[in-house]
Amino acid sequence: MSKEVNVAMIGGGFMGKAHALAYAAMPMFFWPAPAIPRKRVIVDITDEMAEDARQRFSFDEASTDWRATIARDDVDVIDICTPNNMHAEIAIAAASAGKHILCEKPLARGAAEAKSMLDAVERAGVIHMVAFNYRRTPAIALAKTFIDDGRIGEIRNFRGTYLQDWSADPDGPLSWRFQKDIAGSGAVGDIGTHVVDIAHYLVGRISEVNAMTPAYIKTRPVQEGGLDKLGASEKNASARREPVDVEDEVISLLRFENGAVGSLEATRNAYGRNNFITLEIHGTKGSIHFNYERRDELQVMFADDPVDARGFRTIYTGPAHPYGDGLWPIPAIGIGYSETKIIECRDFFQAIASSTQPSPNFVDGYWCELVADALLKSGETGKWVGVKA
Amino acid sequence: MSKEVNVAMIGGGFMGKAHALAYAAMPMFFWPAPAIPRKRVIVDITDEMAEDARQRFSFDEASTDWRATIARDDVDVIDICTPNNMHAEIAIAAASAGKHILCEKPLARGAAEAKSMLDAVERAGVIHMVAFNYRRTPAIALAKTFIDDGRIGEIRNFRGTYLQDWSADPDGPLSWRFQKDIAGSGAVGDIGTHVVDIAHYLVGRISEVNAMTPAYIKTRPVQEGGLDKLGASEKNASARREPVDVEDEVISLLRFENGAVGSLEATRNAYGRNNFITLEIHGTKGSIHFNYERRDELQVMFADDPVDARGFRTIYTGPAHPYGDGLWPIPAIGIGYSETKIIECRDFFQAIASSTQPSPNFVDGYWCELVADALLKSGETGKWVGVKA
Amino acid sequence: MSKEVNVAMIGGGFMGKAHALAYAAMPMFFWPAPAIPRKRVIVDITDEMAEDARQRFSFDEASTDWRATIARDDVDVIDICTPNNMHAEIAIAAASAGKHILCEKPLARGAAEAKSMLDAVERAGVIHMVAFNYRRTPAIALAKTFIDDGRIGEIRNFRGTYLQDWSADPDGPLSWRFQKDIAGSGAVGDIGTHVVDIAHYLVGRISEVNAMTPAYIKTRPVQEGGLDKLGASEKNASARREPVDVEDEVISLLRFENGAVGSLEATRNAYGRNNFITLEIHGTKGSIHFNYERRDELQVMFADDPVDARGFRTIYTGPAHPYGDGLWPIPAIGIGYSETKIIECRDFFQAIASSTQPSPNFVDGYWCELVADALLKSGETGKWVGVKA
Amino acid sequence: MSKEVNVAMIGGGFMGKAHALAYAAMPMFFWPAPAIPRKRVIVDITDEMAEDARQRFSFDEASTDWRATIARDDVDVIDICTPNNMHAEIAIAAASAGKHILCEKPLARGAAEAKSMLDAVERAGVIHMVAFNYRRTPAIALAKTFIDDGRIGEIRNFRGTYLQDWSADPDGPLSWRFQKDIAGSGAVGDIGTHVVDIAHYLVGRISEVNAMTPAYIKTRPVQEGGLDKLGASEKNASARREPVDVEDEVISLLRFENGAVGSLEATRNAYGRNNFITLEIHGTKGSIHFNYERRDELQVMFADDPVDARGFRTIYTGPAHPYGDGLWPIPAIGIGYSETKIIECRDFFQAIASSTQPSPNFVDGYWCELVADALLKSGETGKWVGVKA
Repeated sequence: MSKEVNVAMIGGGFMGKAHALAYAAMPMFFWPAPAIPRKRVIVDITDEMAEDARQRFSFDEASTDWRATIARDDVDVIDICTPNNMHAEIAIAAASAGKHILCEKPLARGAAEAKSMLDAVERAGVIHMVAFNYRRTPAIALAKTFIDDGRIGEIRNFRGTYLQDWSADPDGPLSWRFQKDIAGSGAVGDIGTHVVDIAHYLVGRISEVNAMTPAYIKTRPVQEGGLDKLGASEKNASARREPVDVEDEVISLLRFENGAVGSLEATRNAYGRNNFITLEIHGTKGSIHFNYERRDELQVMFADDPVDARGFRTIYTGPAHPYGDGLWPIPAIGIGYSETKIIECRDFFQAIASSTQPSPNFVDGYWCELVADALLKSGETGKWVGVKA
Repeated sequence: MSKEVNVAMIGGGFMGKAHALAYAAMPMFFWPAPAIPRKRVIVDITDEMAEDARQRFSFDEASTDWRATIARDDVDVIDICTPNNMHAEIAIAAASAGKHILCEKPLARGAAEAKSMLDAVERAGVIHMVAFNYRRTPAIALAKTFIDDGRIGEIRNFRGTYLQDWSADPDGPLSWRFQKDIAGSGAVGDIGTHVVDIAHYLVGRISEVNAMTPAYIKTRPVQEGGLDKLGASEKNASARREPVDVEDEVISLLRFENGAVGSLEATRNAYGRNNFITLEIHGTKGSIHFNYERRDELQVMFADDPVDARGFRTIYTGPAHPYGDGLWPIPAIGIGYSETKIIECRDFFQAIASSTQPSPNFVDGYWCELVADALLKSGETGKWVGVKA
Repeated sequence: MSKEVNVAMIGGGFMGKAHALAYAAMPMFFWPAPAIPRKRVIVDITDEMAEDARQRFSFDEASTDWRATIARDDVDVIDICTPNNMHAEIAIAAASAGKHILCEKPLARGAAEAKSMLDAVERAGVIHMVAFNYRRTPAIALAKTFIDDGRIGEIRNFRGTYLQDWSADPDGPLSWRFQKDIAGSGAVGDIGTHVVDIAHYLVGRISEVNAMTPAYIKTRPVQEGGLDKLGASEKNASARREPVDVEDEVISLLRFENGAVGSLEATRNAYGRNNFITLEIHGTKGSIHFNYERRDELQVMFADDPVDARGFRTIYTGPAHPYGDGLWPIPAIGIGYSETKIIECRDFFQAIASSTQPSPNFVDGYWCELVADALLKSGETGKWVGVKA
Repeated sequence: MSKEVNVAMIGGGFMGKAHALAYAAMPMFFWPAPAIPRKRVIVDITDEMAEDARQRFSFDEASTDWRATIARDDVDVIDICTPNNMHAEIAIAAASAGKHILCEKPLARGAAEAKSMLDAVERAGVIHMVAFNYRRTPAIALAKTFIDDGRIGEIRNFRGTYLQDWSADPDGPLSWRFQKDIAGSGAVGDIGTHVVDIAHYLVGRISEVNAMTPAYIKTRPVQEGGLDKLGASEKNASARREPVDVEDEVISLLRFENGAVGSLEATRNAYGRNNFITLEIHGTKGSIHFNYERRDELQVMFADDPVDARGFRTIYTGPAHPYGDGLWPIPAIGIGYSETKIIECRDFFQAIASSTQPSPNFVDGYWCELVADALLKSGETGKWVGVKA
């Protein structure tokens, strides 16, 4: 029988829900499972919130004291689902207590903070992972196998976007995602880092960026209740407004260490785009295209196909593709957000079971922060900025 | 706190996995939940299989005796995830024992069997539901609201398809899905009934059909192990072959009670189609198109749009749409198979909590069987066949 | 230098424009050309219309007398672009005068009329062609090569649609297309025959049909001026209305001589569909999909592709594909209606130059009429109707 | 009757074909036509080529002497379809001779050369136009009307791409398009300027750029015959190779005078992309998307749509849209390259008839060259470069 591993989750919001689902479902999908996650403790801000989350997500216990929770002997894993400003403090404490750590993305509010976290986990020798779940979409993992097998040749060009529209309305509330002291940055950290992570995964390290980081909406209504409801938030034109101090968008040129070039665009103000994470990769032997809004599909073009039968193939991922043994028995039965998080959970517990660091871990998270800092700096200076540790 | 309701699940295969996920995840999504499903007992064929499924799906107990399980006082719900030939016997017994019933589709191996099940649940006064989950895809539920609000006018035409390719290879194994005594029928019951259910949901009752039901692959290799792996099954060209006695495909003209006409096509032999459930509905004021392979999207055209701005809108379902309060906070974060089953689970327990029959219930399942029987009969006779209770 | 061949065109409307373009452009595209079409005479109803068309389409002469025109020695080809009711009379006269004939589709108002035309051209030994241009879309011609090369195996299933919406508005004018004595039939002849022609081209002869032929809009406003403006027509809710005596839609099951089965749907009342000619063909080794609304693209799936790289390929037709030597030097520069007519023109003059009948010729047109008659008869009787010469 | 206007065309290649078609077809489409173009003289390099082109394109006369042709009294219009290096000399001579000028794009090999041409035509007072035909795609013209009507609000962001793959193979021949002295530049001038023209048309002037201009393929086989066959060219791995001295790709950040930002990417080395001209425009009230590979369609999202019915509309252009009066009577009958050139021709002769400069004229062409120069300079320096006259 698979071993139970005790999890304490800090934060019971949108991400808490996604992770709780993954803990429950992972062994159902990947069996035998590397471990049976036991939902031991959930921590939230108030007693009421914590107890409500405990019932909803089926944890054994509720708490409002994350420090005490970390100190418990019967907790093996700390899962950080808080806003960004709490990541470092919790992660460093958890590492000191010898707990394995799954931390939501972005890892930190910048590279310096991320470095302190990385140092802590490396010192402690615990397993660490950053929850960049989108790279675990089976279609993106399939892209990785085609690239690694040389099927599209040497990569020349990468174009990545992450376009959303939930913040396009200026009367959407001033959630923590628009406050620099909590979020660290705006579109760069919130969604741009997902693209950076995918670029690092598929192409290699970004070495230099040249960015614009415009801010369009300068103030927003103060939010009642503090919730982070994204596209489900209420618009309020008459409430008191306070300043937004983060960028709304980032557009950047990219250079990679291996000589590839490319671009990145991330915005939460693109009307009509919802979770429009797209990739286009051109190689010397073929091309790849992906759009998360149609996430079951990978588009691949092989230049060595017969000239009359060349064209992008639309491959629906299923049993024959990465993670296919654990998912559904027919392609297009449906990959959703849930499945990406279930896969992530599997890989995290497999890392624990095998005592090998998963990917992306805090090293990767740190490098994403280095790129994020470079994007922000380039946005300010208008110059190419190198990415250096 | 939401009340716990004890579930016993019979059958731990593909559908068992999907249902177990839903029981765990439903309260995480829809909160406060109508009930907290407690995974009390799982029943499978052998002790090993049952215990394995118990661990995997996190049930309290395992059993190989479905009759004894039904008799338990600490079981409130019987969830039937077996092959079709067991549906009736289990459901009738469960009804007699006063248990609420969630039964996988198709309800039975024909209308007569379905009628006996319907009679049993109505006699017993229990809550009953058939697991036609696809109609719960938020985009299809959104289509329903547009239709009910008269946005596309009077429906003239319905075209529905369900195309797959997992059985196109003649060396795919002879699973129970190709055996009439177990499955009842082939493509008609397995996938055609999903289209019938959606047609009934969106358009109204089908009153008459005129079908072809060709069989292409007359024998298949005998399957080792008895598993039902669909697209993940191994192909075996050298194994002993036995006859297939069900149809591979159904193509039918349709007439609806309300005067609409249409067509239906279902096959598991359409190379390149995976879970290609498509709808096209033409009304006097607009049209609707849907393809489950891109299930986050509904296509709607309103004829009263300005003439220079008319065209199908691609609506990504999210917080503003059916079930949006319980799913993800941004459209296109992703609806997968999991989410359709979680929604189904919510509606089932809501029905229990409110003591009102859900939809589709055994009445709907019975009418699907009446249509299925008519399709098969028309396929034999080459004539229009009326659908009559 | 290519030889000039003199053309007289009867009818200067929508089709006259398309054909005049083709005469001018064909040698520009296909060079050396099989002939240089010389636009000798255009015939229309009144002197004013004829002279206007002469200037617009750059013909040498205008006439209102089609009989006299046919009698001219300096006319080699008669191009029939009139409404359907004139096809037979003109074609038979032209054949008697020894002229080659290009006749717009459908060939006639039914099989009997078509047969009289076929007899006439065969008696006369002239070259004859029916202008089913859509089969000349390069992507459809490419589908033909894949099928002929056995790349998708034995064809099991054909599904064809032709959906438009220009007649969905009940206040659209009563053009000749809604009058049985002029048009012969409604959706069946006007657009359904295009699908029949493509089915014959790609799959083989249809042997039996089982159809519904509903009529939705029973009267229409009487049209001023007699023009045939389709989607550009003015809607007039207040004008005097007269009966429509043709069907609005046809939906049919199909059987082919070679054992394939399928379906056909044609309507001009499908809101949001414009020129939605779609094909889906399933074979034992692959599948083909095509949608004329995206006519540069052919979708092909080969079942013998590696299992992890299987999926529909989107092939943009270009220089490597049928007619590619004469069209544009890069795929997706753009195939429009013009190009399909230019190709048709090339094949017609090549037939003349080589004294071999082109395809589709009047034999094919006659068989389309046999299928059309069968569809109409089945729509009336509700029974399978065989297609017999 | 419309007046005849005599045209002399210099260059009988790919563009000669497109223009000859337009001259023949324009009055057939747009009637009454602003003028009847008469194909008076065609000029090519050798007597054989000129005579061949004369017959193929149906000109009255052939010539090898463009200077003499320009001097003829019976020539009203000079149409420049040569490689880029001849544009200036011919245009300046034509202007001096008082001829109206239609010049293929890009206008010149840089801004200085373009300025000399602009000065010449302004001095001469003739009508001048640059053949950026893609902005005349009806869907792009429709985008313009939506933008001008304020339907998508203030434009925040423009992303334009032009991706092709005909030069991705390193063994494709060294056509003039890879030689700086003839072409002026590589991807920037050949295709990037189309995107610049569309950006200027839809958004406004680009004021600043920040680009990468990588070159991937350093040598190419020397081409036999000198033809410019693009995707139809023969690959020759064994021929003698000579250097390519232009860039293969340009990726750039953009700033517009009106405050909008954006990006541009153009390459002829993107395997699987054929004529992938895409636009994405985000405004404060909606968004627009367009892909020329599916050029009949415009995607528009209006943020003021009801929240449950928001999404990109796929509008198929037809009679209700720009140029719809002259094209085809139903959307999706098909816009091809031909139609874009026919529209361009109409607008050019309308400009002549009305003695008003068309758009884009040499002023626009000159500004495109200013942007092109800035892109190339930024590619060299790695810095933002302003666009200044």
